[in-house]
Amino acid sequence: MFVTTWGVWERRTVRQTAPWIVSPPATGRQRDTRWVAGTPRCARHRRLRRPHSFPGGHYLSGGYRYSVHMQVATGAQVLPPTPQFTIDANGYLYCEQVRVKDVQDAMGPLGSPFYLYSHARIQQNYRAYAEALAGMDAIIGYAVKANNNLRLLEMLRGMGSGAVLVSGNELRLAQLAGFDMQKTVFNGNGKTPLEIDMAVHAGCLINIDSEFDLENIQASARRVATRARVILRINPDIDPQVHPYVSTGLASSKFGIRNARLDWFLQSIRDNHDALELVGVHSHLGSTITKVELFRDATALMLQFVERIRQARFDTLRYLNIGGGLGIDYRRQGVRIPTPQELIDAVRPMLRGTDLTLIVEPGRSLVGDAGMLVTSVIGVKTNGSKNFIVVDGSMSEMIRPSLYDAYHYITLIEPGIPGEPPHTYDVVGPVCESSDFLGKERVLPLPAPGIGLAVMDSGAYCMSMASNYNMKVFPAEVLVDGNTWRVIRRRQSFDDLLRGYGEPRSR
Amino acid sequence: MFVTTWGVWERRTVRQTAPWIVSPPATGRQRDTRWVAGTPRCARHRRLRRPHSFPGGHYLSGGYRYSVHMQVATGAQVLPPTPQFTIDANGYLYCEQVRVKDVQDAMGPLGSPFYLYSHARIQQNYRAYAEALAGMDAIIGYAVKANNNLRLLEMLRGMGSGAVLVSGNELRLAQLAGFDMQKTVFNGNGKTPLEIDMAVHAGCLINIDSEFDLENIQASARRVATRARVILRINPDIDPQVHPYVSTGLASSKFGIRNARLDWFLQSIRDNHDALELVGVHSHLGSTITKVELFRDATALMLQFVERIRQARFDTLRYLNIGGGLGIDYRRQGVRIPTPQELIDAVRPMLRGTDLTLIVEPGRSLVGDAGMLVTSVIGVKTNGSKNFIVVDGSMSEMIRPSLYDAYHYITLIEPGIPGEPPHTYDVVGPVCESSDFLGKERVLPLPAPGIGLAVMDSGAYCMSMASNYNMKVFPAEVLVDGNTWRVIRRRQSFDDLLRGYGEPRSR
Repeated sequence: MFVTTWGVWERRTVRQTAPWIVSPPATGRQRDTRWVAGTPRCARHRRLRRPHSFPGGHYLSGGYRYSVHMQVATGAQVLPPTPQFTIDANGYLYCEQVRVKDVQDAMGPLGSPFYLYSHARIQQNYRAYAEALAGMDAIIGYAVKANNNLRLLEMLRGMGSGAVLVSGNELRLAQLAGFDMQKTVFNGNGKTPLEIDMAVHAGCLINIDSEFDLENIQASARRVATRARVILRINPDIDPQVHPYVSTGLASSKFGIRNARLDWFLQSIRDNHDALELVGVHSHLGSTITKVELFRDATALMLQFVERIRQARFDTLRYLNIGGGLGIDYRRQGVRIPTPQELIDAVRPMLRGTDLTLIVEPGRSLVGDAGMLVTSVIGVKTNGSKNFIVVDGSMSEMIRPSLYDAYHYITLIEPGIPGEPPHTYDVVGPVCESSDFLGKERVLPLPAPGIGLAVMDSGAYCMSMASNYNMKVFPAEVLVDGNTWRVIRRRQSFDDLLRGYGEPRSR
Repeated sequence: MFVTTWGVWERRTVRQTAPWIVSPPATGRQRDTRWVAGTPRCARHRRLRRPHSFPGGHYLSGGYRYSVHMQVATGAQVLPPTPQFTIDANGYLYCEQVRVKDVQDAMGPLGSPFYLYSHARIQQNYRAYAEALAGMDAIIGYAVKANNNLRLLEMLRGMGSGAVLVSGNELRLAQLAGFDMQKTVFNGNGKTPLEIDMAVHAGCLINIDSEFDLENIQASARRVATRARVILRINPDIDPQVHPYVSTGLASSKFGIRNARLDWFLQSIRDNHDALELVGVHSHLGSTITKVELFRDATALMLQFVERIRQARFDTLRYLNIGGGLGIDYRRQGVRIPTPQELIDAVRPMLRGTDLTLIVEPGRSLVGDAGMLVTSVIGVKTNGSKNFIVVDGSMSEMIRPSLYDAYHYITLIEPGIPGEPPHTYDVVGPVCESSDFLGKERVLPLPAPGIGLAVMDSGAYCMSMASNYNMKVFPAEVLVDGNTWRVIRRRQSFDDLLRGYGEPRSR
């Protein structure tokens, strides 16, 4: 049987302890002390500029030597901070008890690349929220836009999750997945009247994002003859200190009401009380957030709004939606990411006695680190100054590196060519433009053609953002559960690409 | 009958004449001399930082006043430089003789947004290349990745175009569209063995991008028992002075062979002469190029390679592929973009007596300025410091603004609310992240909800890069031809999004 082991990440000077230390390291059982990458010349206190991509082992930065050493009782090393992903003593990557190479072989050359998710990891991530919220009146609303695979939705619904939706089609999908509509939130700065009709009819909590949104919701409620349960999206004007593209809570953002207009909104809701029932307030700071104080500040601000709204005699106010946004450790280098427990603990004391139901909207932190894109190496080339590993995955399947300059940890799923030293590579796809890369300047073993390469932490905002650019088809999605795996959405076919023209005309 | 008119763009100092001046302006028939936008405080020689989005009219920059004045004999003003797009005296946008509003009405709220293309514009763009190449032995290879709509491919094939392909699926589509495979080029830095098999079997010209690519092509030729016609992709190491994401001809690029290894490539081809027939050389500088000298420099360099290769007794060398890359005037403000004639004239003298067939690979310059995304206004909001027009089009249908920070000219397709002054707006979509914008800081009339807004020059790299992010479906595509229009690819349906799960389960 495969026994999951725990990785331990240590810095020689022990100034910093990584969050996934689960037990103290066994007495100095370092596997190898060779310095595999990095430059000893980098300045002592400079931050690591070019992170090295070794799954385990050792590297230098800022004059320190870092070591990842493992309890090797089973011969496997974990990819921290996700114990569901391990590399065995022979250099093969596992997801839970499934060897990724075996899945790659079964999928075949035509089935590459594909996404692969860990059931256990999603479950663990969900439980972290559920346990953090234990004893509180709360809704965990999974942000469907992160990954809308129907089977994953059904899984999360089965665990007790609600759903956070941003389009009519997401609502329809959530209904197919069987979500309790009382536990769904319908968000968005640009809901169309048709979408609002669907949301009102289904009984979702609907956020009011602007004056025109309020107008549309009340008109819809009258059309559908159902009172809409609405939540005011407040703009907290707090800088989440993340990439501008995933920052959503600044005053300059397109989201949320203008707070100075609060009284207008309250009056309008009162004037339309037959159509609108104000049940909550909402804020969302952004995504990939790593500082829990930001949530505390936002909650404090939101509670002031709750107070004001209740003083205005809206006795139905019941929900405080603090949005989502917890980041994950994309670099897998021990960046301190708050846990759901820390997030909830930061706001819990403030909620005592408020008689509010807390809504959280995790997406990335539920599924992000549970997935990987498994892609196959086509070849390795150099242009003299730069080396490239060319793979069959690309910006079409996974646009985060190009769009957000996002870093995803990359590892081979099997050993490189024996005897060859590691080199620094750009990992690029076959799409005909220079923005098509999955990782830059990664230290990796020399891979033989055909072997697999895993782009980790691809569970969120990857498959859901896939395109058919260069006529690449959407990849298949595979779910691993223990020692079994299955395809939970098949790969698109060429015929699928022709559906818009009428009769399929494929040869 | 609708008579197309010509717009004239004039700068008060007449230092610069825009390329689309077709006839001298009628005697001072300026429609309006009001200064509609811009700040008089900007420094005299500073470049225009925030372009203003007025289809016609006047604006200030760098201390100059610019005027776009029109021959208003028919009451219509053209959107330079594309005479196929006009705004009539009542403020309605036309594509050829079709009023865009009529198409929007016919498509309905569920059919919004959609792409709309001008047949005449594509034809004009194609003819510009065909006429420029008159008398030369040449292939115009349309770069299918720019826009792979099957009906547009059939149209271009009918005009005499060849095709440039970058994936197996593009090859299959080109075969469906009926392209002459002798006039197709199969490019790419990451062709899979299966794709190469298809290309060899079909008889495409196949570019050799790297050592491993050569290996794969010769192996494939043996498998398919067909000699592959190959072209060496040279890396010219010329900076195209464009966005790094669309720059492809630098030594640091992932594309092309390492020129210092030329002899190795020639020797390998010679060693595999039963499988490989070297018939040409290829370079590609990048995309959105606005300087014709860059092509001249690249051609000169390529001819040196041709000379070297011919001296090495490769008598079959016949094709010089200078790639594509001509830009278009996205800002519609008179930026000087070389015409195909100028591009070809720059290289034509160098080709005399070389006995070479010239291959050009236009994509954007054939279809880019022939298309628009027509999207509907959901509402207008302000957060105090910023105003937003929220539309139902988004980064899902059109990612260029987010991905490349690309500028697309935006205009209403009908008049704004009467009596309301224009304001500066960010045009944003409904997708739940801040990267979802179509244009920033555009001066536009105040639009009523539901009215249409056209994001111009969306014929290339827009629909072909669409995603289902937020479960938005791929929009329909409409082709206008004279005074008629038809849907040439239907909008995706919700059921289409469920096809990967087996039986459609839509309610």
